Amino acid sequence: MSTFTKTHRNRVKRHPERGAYDHETVYKILDEALICHVGFAVDNQPFVIPTIHARRGDTLLLHGASTSRLLKHIEAGNPLCVAVTLLDGLVVARSIFNNSMNYRSIVLFGTGHLLDDPEEKYAALHALTERVLPGRWDDARLPNRKELKATSIIAMPIETASAKIRVGPPKDEPEDYALEFWAGIVPITQTFHAPQNDPKLKDNTPVPKYLQGYKRHS
Amino acid sequence: MSTFTKTHRNRVKRHPERGAYDHETVYKILDEALICHVGFAVDNQPFVIPTIHARRGDTLLLHGASTSRLLKHIEAGNPLCVAVTLLDGLVVARSIFNNSMNYRSIVLFGTGHLLDDPEEKYAALHALTERVLPGRWDDARLPNRKELKATSIIAMPIETASAKIRVGPPKDEPEDYALEFWAGIVPITQTFHAPQNDPKLKDNTPVPKYLQGYKRHS
Repeated sequence: MSTFTKTHRNRVKRHPERGAYDHETVYKILDEALICHVGFAVDNQPFVIPTIHARRGDTLLLHGASTSRLLKHIEAGNPLCVAVTLLDGLVVARSIFNNSMNYRSIVLFGTGHLLDDPEEKYAALHALTERVLPGRWDDARLPNRKELKATSIIAMPIETASAKIRVGPPKDEPEDYALEFWAGIVPITQTFHAPQNDPKLKDNTPVPKYLQGYKRHS
Repeated sequence: MSTFTKTHRNRVKRHPERGAYDHETVYKILDEALICHVGFAVDNQPFVIPTIHARRGDTLLLHGASTSRLLKHIEAGNPLCVAVTLLDGLVVARSIFNNSMNYRSIVLFGTGHLLDDPEEKYAALHALTERVLPGRWDDARLPNRKELKATSIIAMPIETASAKIRVGPPKDEPEDYALEFWAGIVPITQTFHAPQNDPKLKDNTPVPKYLQGYKRHS
């Protein structure tokens, strides 16, 4: 099993028992999440931007958050940090101190570069679209030259990464288990509801099969 | 209505029509969200950390992500960026280029400081607990001196902030409305399920009323 090397950047310091470094665990979380949060800094001022992402092997693809600030940052060869967090539950412990959440989170580190080649950009848009809406690329009006030109795509080879995962019931202090307070978890899921037609939809256009029962694969 | 001044940090550049700067809009999103992503930079290396938060007036309270790295950063008087993102739907347009998401997001800027005073820390823990689990503070074993000492609380006066919100159906190019592709949205919500007992729960301890039908208020 291939793993990311632990460095000062990606090592899970707090609750190290929740850390994981293998590609499979990290990429499963990355692939399930709809969005990520991209962090970068300009003159020591940090910025965090939510955006969609796709993965091609060990490279992260980003688009749609291409503020001139982020582009400038990337063109200067500065590093990025990308965080993805999936919330799975509220963990209600007998003691306030041991309250927690169940979650699957990852953090990725690398340096991005802009894709210039139109064919590469086109392929990246395909990947970004199909990751969010599998099946849609072949059932939509595809990007034209002008749109492709207006789109910025960032490719970030993933240099290092780690996952941090908490599952299961609360962990209370041994002596607190004698207390009478309720304890347990409130599970959380992201729910995708039945598609709603655009009010301007042409009559009788059915909801495509690939959008029925939409869900993210974990 | 009080609003945040637009500066180079918080101004919404891409899709400015989605921007909002009034405290009410920003704080409603902040208060609904269970977690935020905190961005900071050390020697130009950005980091992004997911954590829970609470708000007291115009001050953000953070805890539980107090890596020595973040603490060191804050003690040196360096700025933070905090992002909160609520996903409300997939927006499926007739053209790939106009695919989008419905979301409510905010970004906050400020400089944090650590709370030292035990009473202030205790009050902050109360705020953080009650925001996630309203009613729990009076129905749990409260933090003792040792636990309080082991807890770091960061207070960040919110210097400036902005919201970015997208709602509604896709916006296609005028000529694309003649196309036969389906278009619309797939609504997304965060679902909180029925509480599950800790396997080590004492017999017959009922689920407290304040945890039944848990939801976040929007």
